[in-house]
Amino acid sequence: MKKKLGAKPLILPMPALLVGTYSDDGTPNAMTAAWAAVCCHRPFCVGVAVRQSRKTFANVEFKKAFTLNVPNTSLARAVDYLGIVSGAQEPGKLEIAKLETVAASKVDAPIITQCPVNMECQLIQTLPLGSHSWFVGQVAEVQVSEEVMDSDGVIDTKSLDPLIYITTDSKYYTVGESVGQAFSMGKTLSR
Amino acid sequence: MKKKLGAKPLILPMPALLVGTYSDDGTPNAMTAAWAAVCCHRPFCVGVAVRQSRKTFANVEFKKAFTLNVPNTSLARAVDYLGIVSGAQEPGKLEIAKLETVAASKVDAPIITQCPVNMECQLIQTLPLGSHSWFVGQVAEVQVSEEVMDSDGVIDTKSLDPLIYITTDSKYYTVGESVGQAFSMGKTLSR
Repeated sequence: MKKKLGAKPLILPMPALLVGTYSDDGTPNAMTAAWAAVCCHRPFCVGVAVRQSRKTFANVEFKKAFTLNVPNTSLARAVDYLGIVSGAQEPGKLEIAKLETVAASKVDAPIITQCPVNMECQLIQTLPLGSHSWFVGQVAEVQVSEEVMDSDGVIDTKSLDPLIYITTDSKYYTVGESVGQAFSMGKTLSR
Repeated sequence: MKKKLGAKPLILPMPALLVGTYSDDGTPNAMTAAWAAVCCHRPFCVGVAVRQSRKTFANVEFKKAFTLNVPNTSLARAVDYLGIVSGAQEPGKLEIAKLETVAASKVDAPIITQCPVNMECQLIQTLPLGSHSWFVGQVAEVQVSEEVMDSDGVIDTKSLDPLIYITTDSKYYTVGESVGQAFSMGKTLSR
């Protein structure tokens, strides 16, 4: 039996990413975002929802650029802190979270050094929807820590150890066991 | 050390959802989508990227509605199949995947009965980006299987057992262990 719960945004699971931006005076900022996704293949685009009151919102509008950074589970406390506190109230939030930044190589935004995967994004569309706008960035470059890649340059999921966010219990999780290979296991189904 | 990999859309992790739609003649269809996210809080909106060639694309444009359905890991093989095969080539794909549908309560789209969470979405924006368009739906209703809720009506993550997709190794995973409570564990950080 199904039960109706009203309107709730239950995407399960979600990532727990850090959005890196520079303010107009060049101060780096980072905000946690679970509301993000790939939104196009050609060109490669990613989108992220940002609330108008966030410092990140003003920064993206000003610099037309942002980074999406994939943290590992060891950064969970810092990730949570960066989601609770806005750079509008605490400009030193990155320092408090003990996170370091370096300028991205192709866009005017900072990457978070400790995050093993960093996507550099150029803003190409802004979609105002209400409390949030959906910022679409074209991916210009990706940087990945050598420590999470195997000898063939393939990113190893266990080494990467990405942080998962489950919105229904508001908890962070690790990735569990593999249940199969995509674009493969479904091929056994047929009429 | 970081290594540059060029432009890649590395959101990690991703969900593995089923997008439910009706065609113009009322035939139910479902497509797997890992490229989906919440994109607004007020009103509650979710977005999903769909390639123009997909039957789902025509269906959403025609009916102005879709559902996002959260499968559990027992449905991994069916989910993978629904991602490989388009309803444009195989109108009977739901039958082959042994999935059943029922009409959503508030929008003109089918929900996938076996998925424990179903979001009913009314199309409010379409953002063409290139190979894909980003469909934004306002969430009209959510239906959840009673089996995945505890006695207080809270969705239990272990019972829900949502499917995770990791794009870098193209594998499906289970949710692992909890690493902390969101909007809480970060509060211990301060100057």
